[in-house]
Amino acid sequence: MSNAATSAYEDLQQRHRRLHHLAHLQAIASWDQSANMPAKGNEARSLALAEMGGLMHQLATEPALKELLARAEGEALDEAQRANLREMGRVWRASNALPQSLVEAKSLANSRCEHAWREQRPANDWAGYVENLREVVRLAREEARLLAESSGLSLYDALMDQYEPGMRATEVDRVFGDLRQWLPGLIREVRARQQSETTLQPQGPFAKEAQRALGLDAMRLMGFDFEAGRLDESAHPFCGGVPEDVRMTTRYREDSFLPSLMGVIHETGHGRYEQNLPREWLGQPLAAARSMGLHESQSLSFEMQLGSHPAFAALLQPLLVKHLGEQPAFEAANLHRLLTRVSPGYIRVDADEVTYPAHIILRYEIERALIEGQIECEDIPALWDAKMMELLGLDTRGNYKDGCMQDVHWGAGLFGYFPCYTLGAMYAAQFFASMRRTLPDLDARIAAGDLAPVFGWLNENIWSQGSRWTTPELVRRASGETLNPAHFRAHLQARYLA
Amino acid sequence: MSNAATSAYEDLQQRHRRLHHLAHLQAIASWDQSANMPAKGNEARSLALAEMGGLMHQLATEPALKELLARAEGEALDEAQRANLREMGRVWRASNALPQSLVEAKSLANSRCEHAWREQRPANDWAGYVENLREVVRLAREEARLLAESSGLSLYDALMDQYEPGMRATEVDRVFGDLRQWLPGLIREVRARQQSETTLQPQGPFAKEAQRALGLDAMRLMGFDFEAGRLDESAHPFCGGVPEDVRMTTRYREDSFLPSLMGVIHETGHGRYEQNLPREWLGQPLAAARSMGLHESQSLSFEMQLGSHPAFAALLQPLLVKHLGEQPAFEAANLHRLLTRVSPGYIRVDADEVTYPAHIILRYEIERALIEGQIECEDIPALWDAKMMELLGLDTRGNYKDGCMQDVHWGAGLFGYFPCYTLGAMYAAQFFASMRRTLPDLDARIAAGDLAPVFGWLNENIWSQGSRWTTPELVRRASGETLNPAHFRAHLQARYLA
Repeated sequence: MSNAATSAYEDLQQRHRRLHHLAHLQAIASWDQSANMPAKGNEARSLALAEMGGLMHQLATEPALKELLARAEGEALDEAQRANLREMGRVWRASNALPQSLVEAKSLANSRCEHAWREQRPANDWAGYVENLREVVRLAREEARLLAESSGLSLYDALMDQYEPGMRATEVDRVFGDLRQWLPGLIREVRARQQSETTLQPQGPFAKEAQRALGLDAMRLMGFDFEAGRLDESAHPFCGGVPEDVRMTTRYREDSFLPSLMGVIHETGHGRYEQNLPREWLGQPLAAARSMGLHESQSLSFEMQLGSHPAFAALLQPLLVKHLGEQPAFEAANLHRLLTRVSPGYIRVDADEVTYPAHIILRYEIERALIEGQIECEDIPALWDAKMMELLGLDTRGNYKDGCMQDVHWGAGLFGYFPCYTLGAMYAAQFFASMRRTLPDLDARIAAGDLAPVFGWLNENIWSQGSRWTTPELVRRASGETLNPAHFRAHLQARYLA
Repeated sequence: MSNAATSAYEDLQQRHRRLHHLAHLQAIASWDQSANMPAKGNEARSLALAEMGGLMHQLATEPALKELLARAEGEALDEAQRANLREMGRVWRASNALPQSLVEAKSLANSRCEHAWREQRPANDWAGYVENLREVVRLAREEARLLAESSGLSLYDALMDQYEPGMRATEVDRVFGDLRQWLPGLIREVRARQQSETTLQPQGPFAKEAQRALGLDAMRLMGFDFEAGRLDESAHPFCGGVPEDVRMTTRYREDSFLPSLMGVIHETGHGRYEQNLPREWLGQPLAAARSMGLHESQSLSFEMQLGSHPAFAALLQPLLVKHLGEQPAFEAANLHRLLTRVSPGYIRVDADEVTYPAHIILRYEIERALIEGQIECEDIPALWDAKMMELLGLDTRGNYKDGCMQDVHWGAGLFGYFPCYTLGAMYAAQFFASMRRTLPDLDARIAAGDLAPVFGWLNENIWSQGSRWTTPELVRRASGETLNPAHFRAHLQARYLA
């Protein structure tokens, strides 16, 4: 690439643009690995992605960067450029904490484990899975040790900081500790109240093609730009790709359409965040989504704040009739009862918003102990069984596929990520509380089918801001205060116990 | 990547393995660009692929390579390693002839032109297309000039040598000159004979999903490994991906299933060549397919030598009934007449094997004049119209979309490629002649539905050989002589005039 940079800052910008281009190919090849790739392609794909991971790490740790970052600090920059430089420094520190050999070993081990998991999970093959997982955990511990060394954080904090910069286990303990106190009682109270409700169950089967068409219409309702993204299938739903070309996935069950439909609405929240990151900054760290917790706050704004809103069922109902035919169960009041039904279940991604935090607390406790070396991979199933019984009263013994093998995260080497889901739920509740203060007629607008004020508020306050502010500052600017879990409790009480 | 190389040859092997990994991501992202990508993703994808093209070029031209290649020449290597080293040298010379800036500019211009073509072609928008094409041609001429300078070849030979190493325009002129003499007469003779035939036309429409299922069954019949590849849709059918994960595409017309079906059988020939390249050498130049002409000889072995074989219709017939229902037109004798119907048409990829060479002669003459600067892009339509009238008696005036805009090649910067199609048809005829000498009962075996002897012969003589031998040597080993166009003429006479 020709280098006509006249300042250290411009040189850095060029290097980040280059990384952005390579990350594009990596993102598409990773999406393809989950959505398209046949079995025999995996070994070559894993090697290719590991090579690319190593190469990008090499570019992100070039010796010249240290001096360029220092020189750029002294250059005349406006506020946005300065924020971009701050984020460049964050990327640089994170990259330099890990040697290239570890980055490549992780990419390879994670790819292998995740790929094998796709067949091991349906086969309930824990023994096969744990063989690969052991290596993934070994490398994650090594990663935690090195990140902790360079940052001065504890082992688990060092990993979590990659996904939720600035968040600490002590803060998570505080918030989750509070939650553990009132959540079981709230679940009991909601379930007692819902016991007297009569809810009609939709009658399947629901053909995959009809569900797919329904999902596409739901994405349209939620404002997804189909000229800059698509919807496909994968074993575990996710939102990947690049801001210019968002790749959402879902999975279908013919006996039930709600998991896929609400999953699609969830991923659309992620997708619109990506599609609306500050366009003029794309390729620079400033244009990246702020954190995984904030990302989840957007998907939960779509799936829970809107999707389970008392007025939303009436917006969905005509789409269900169009694609699945008329059914008494699709009547709006019944549909709303279905969408707000609280019921402890095995599967995190299918959980209602009230029991969901229990799934997260369980995973947080297990993965933290795993990273800190208090337990080994072999201990996971027994701990999982005990905590599921304690938190949700469910027996998961021997059922690995709906237990500790249900998520892709650990197999893919993601430790320190799970807390983001519940932090996201809390941010979303806080944002909607703030929105209602600014827009007193918000609920009436939603009831009238006008979702534009919600999307407008999110775009202005979150999406278009990228990584311009730190998380606490972004949350404060958007809502007038930093993370306050009281909004989440108030939201659940208002929706489920009012 | 750690470098434990103990010899120059091993060092070179490691570098090629690295290039192979990066080429993997490039191949998948390119396939995705044609098969999946939404419109707004194109600018970012083009930039990403250009960045990767530049990076790979940088790796393929590292100054250390020259000395490594020289040192490896003096090392103790077995015959296969020596052939691999020869191919490494070929790759190195080709890479060094072009500066990185040109590689990147080409990638960008070609991506842009090809992407816009996808909407311009259906809109018959020649004026819009030629805007982009001018830049593609300008860069192709620059490429030809540099390649010619470093190789001592003429401008057009220098481009053609990238696809068909060793082939020269003088040789093409000789072979095509011969063809031009007897082809028009043969077409007339065949058409006169077919005039008295009664052929039932299949009655559509044929649903896309049924055609897709039929195509997948045809791929099974032809031995495609679905654990190492897949079939998707794109505007222009191609066979991409990597040997470990072959990505074939097709397109569907609801009024006619034969173009897609025979296109799929064609691409399956390309796909099986890739899937059966020498596995233990993957990642090294030795494991690459030998040339584009030989690649086409495999797709034409499948589509024409087998697909239009008098016994093949009986193998297809039950698949048609299974997926499209019973029709009198599917009766084997009628189906064979449909598959061997000779009829001059606008579209190259839909052409029968008798008129196909006329499409190639036309393109060869135009692209050669274009590269040599005797004509400009603006002259293409008039020349196209004149040559189509002369060679096939068809009027294409004003019909750009079925005329000079029908192919992706020129827009994608591929000049010097077209002759490979007809060279491939000639190689295929020569291989089947050789096969029949070795296996006198070949036609009886095919008639009995046993295609294994054909696949076995191709695998042993072509697929598994990769780039171990030069093209003339490979052809000589497989058939006892170098390229002899008499076999193609004999094949057409035996099939169409016997």
